[in-house]
Amino acid sequence: MEYTSMSREQLQAEHAAVSKEFDALKARGLKLDMSRGKPGKAQLDMVSGILSILADPADCVVDGVDVRNYGELTGLPCAKRYFAEILGCKSEECFIGGNASLTLMYDTIAKAYTHGLLHSEKPWAKLDTVKFLCPAPGYDRHFKISQSFGMEMITIEMTETGPDMDAVEAAVKDPAVKGMWCVPKYSNPEGVVYSEETIRRIAGLKPAAPDFLLMWDNAYCIHEFDGDYVPFPDILSLCREAGNPDMVFEYASTSKVTLPGAGVSVMATSVDNMKYMTGLLGIQTISYDKVNQLRHVLFLKDKAHTLELMKKHAAIMKPKFDAVVSALDEEIAPLGIAQWKRPKGGYFVSVDTMDGLAKRTLALCKEAGVVMTGAGATFPYGVDPRDRNIRIAPSLPPVEELEQAIAVFCTCLKLAALEKLLAA
Amino acid sequence: MEYTSMSREQLQAEHAAVSKEFDALKARGLKLDMSRGKPGKAQLDMVSGILSILADPADCVVDGVDVRNYGELTGLPCAKRYFAEILGCKSEECFIGGNASLTLMYDTIAKAYTHGLLHSEKPWAKLDTVKFLCPAPGYDRHFKISQSFGMEMITIEMTETGPDMDAVEAAVKDPAVKGMWCVPKYSNPEGVVYSEETIRRIAGLKPAAPDFLLMWDNAYCIHEFDGDYVPFPDILSLCREAGNPDMVFEYASTSKVTLPGAGVSVMATSVDNMKYMTGLLGIQTISYDKVNQLRHVLFLKDKAHTLELMKKHAAIMKPKFDAVVSALDEEIAPLGIAQWKRPKGGYFVSVDTMDGLAKRTLALCKEAGVVMTGAGATFPYGVDPRDRNIRIAPSLPPVEELEQAIAVFCTCLKLAALEKLLAA
Repeated sequence: MEYTSMSREQLQAEHAAVSKEFDALKARGLKLDMSRGKPGKAQLDMVSGILSILADPADCVVDGVDVRNYGELTGLPCAKRYFAEILGCKSEECFIGGNASLTLMYDTIAKAYTHGLLHSEKPWAKLDTVKFLCPAPGYDRHFKISQSFGMEMITIEMTETGPDMDAVEAAVKDPAVKGMWCVPKYSNPEGVVYSEETIRRIAGLKPAAPDFLLMWDNAYCIHEFDGDYVPFPDILSLCREAGNPDMVFEYASTSKVTLPGAGVSVMATSVDNMKYMTGLLGIQTISYDKVNQLRHVLFLKDKAHTLELMKKHAAIMKPKFDAVVSALDEEIAPLGIAQWKRPKGGYFVSVDTMDGLAKRTLALCKEAGVVMTGAGATFPYGVDPRDRNIRIAPSLPPVEELEQAIAVFCTCLKLAALEKLLAA
Repeated sequence: MEYTSMSREQLQAEHAAVSKEFDALKARGLKLDMSRGKPGKAQLDMVSGILSILADPADCVVDGVDVRNYGELTGLPCAKRYFAEILGCKSEECFIGGNASLTLMYDTIAKAYTHGLLHSEKPWAKLDTVKFLCPAPGYDRHFKISQSFGMEMITIEMTETGPDMDAVEAAVKDPAVKGMWCVPKYSNPEGVVYSEETIRRIAGLKPAAPDFLLMWDNAYCIHEFDGDYVPFPDILSLCREAGNPDMVFEYASTSKVTLPGAGVSVMATSVDNMKYMTGLLGIQTISYDKVNQLRHVLFLKDKAHTLELMKKHAAIMKPKFDAVVSALDEEIAPLGIAQWKRPKGGYFVSVDTMDGLAKRTLALCKEAGVVMTGAGATFPYGVDPRDRNIRIAPSLPPVEELEQAIAVFCTCLKLAALEKLLAA
């Protein structure tokens, strides 16, 4: 029976029962973590081969480059070819970075502020106002970059097919709107795959700002955990064909393919942008870690071989997502107090509760020993206007711990809903 | 006989002979490189063990941290302890970065511009003028960072004991002077070790700018190639004792200890600075490559073990420096057309020619197939006011190639000097 259809007496009885459940869970002194999209130990162990794949100094010279020494700012040619195949772009459009695509994203924004982008009239630090479009719910670390630079973030509603494009097209008419964050495949946190139509409209935007920056974080481009690999279009080609060749910077990494802390990142952009950005990046570093780039190319080989590895990750991930969604289906669906998506890839399950329950639910979870991403984190400035979105990250705990954690979550969500309904 | 004591006839005869020598060298079609401080292949091969030292996933958990996963922004505790011992500071003062200390330096300056430092009144991007002290000859990549951000660089003369401290103390009275570049041990390119007195005066500076930034690039802190390890004082303690606890950021790396392209870098600064900077750095990355940090700790162990390894590097490096200095002593010293230092550590030999010979000498070298660091590179804006400083980097070529390269250099220098004297 849905909570909203219950009488006050029924709600009181349910509250008493759920409170008892909560107290029992709390008494177990759990310490469980569903806060971040961290791969679990089984996934790390699965790729141990990468640790020792490059052991012989004779193997350290490739394409005429000794990977151990300084040099090759834009990355090893073989690493650029590898990522170009994954992303569907050209190898000369790829810049291979260190272990974090987040750092490449930050660097792009930072250089927009300190030096300006290729088509900037001046560095953004010299502007009074910089606005940025933030489809939400979205990735908290994107929003934190924007916030750190003092941008004015404009929330764009996420739909089943990606950002609300009518809103985006209207917003970019303002020359102070300098860019947009996008996670086009298995968006963080909802797992939405942008539709072909959405992507076409994004590539064809006519922003007033000549240096509009499309931040295309393709973090989950090959990260299906349910079903076959879903092809995606090359955003660089689409932007070029739409007359916006220099509008987009695309990012990806092997953080959730090999080792989260020791992977390789890539930034893909037009050759003209690449020329401009390497002029700036060459001041900052001589080269990124090419030994690790070569390890990755030797271990991952090519797209086909990488997709096989992703199937093995999926085999570890799917039972975890199933555990979360099954618990929600069983425990929460009949009560009508929340909704959620059923993603087929990415690292999250996004739950929308009845308005006003997210903070309280997560506070209760914390009390019962389950850490989750903070409420509001998926919105600009950390403020969810309806206090309802909760990001569940099921990847880190083993299934048996996860089942306990999600049971705690369901109990806390029920309790929060009952408290609210009884207070009304 | 010194060239300046020669008659015109003698000079003409010498010019004819040296020209013939030059033509013969040029005809050999050499392709030799003394341009950058790159370790040679024998040095890289010597540390091959680091490639496979961490192969077992069971070894990947240290201090309770799985180094393969995300986390630990400031670095692995054991890596911080390792660098703290090398630098003589505390481990909580160490931030472990990626493969390039240059990037940590750039990031510090970039954050001063975009966000300001701990004691900044506003971000430097909001200031009309930012001046920076540049002891010269110095490291071209430092000067390029300053130039890239549009700083006004003020050249400070280098002496036998470090930067001219009278000039420095006078300059910092200007509140627009926001910092200074320093390479305190085996300075690039001269190999000068700052004296105790110089370091004491630097630590005790009373800059007008509250956010004066002492960029202490201790790149060659354990890089003796001739003689025993020379201890150096902990600049963090000295600044703290002088009442300037937050003035200094120190940098070092293993680029010339293990692998130049795949080492580990460190930034050391006060705990207050660390707290402020990690607040900004945590927006930029989740963590640097801890797998590589652990490889380094396992391979290098501690300071004593690292100094043993540096002796092995020295055994490879010293014959190369000897070859350069011997050739200069034999071929150039009697002619009175240049002077040079005899460094005991670092990666360079710095030659000061008679005024006005550097560019021409290097152009001739290029013609004869020997690439060197560009003339002027060791000065702000790439302009050597007396056109005389040449940086020789002997580390990369094997000794037999190096002997050829330095022979070419000597011939070119002679020819440049003769041309100039004959034109006078």
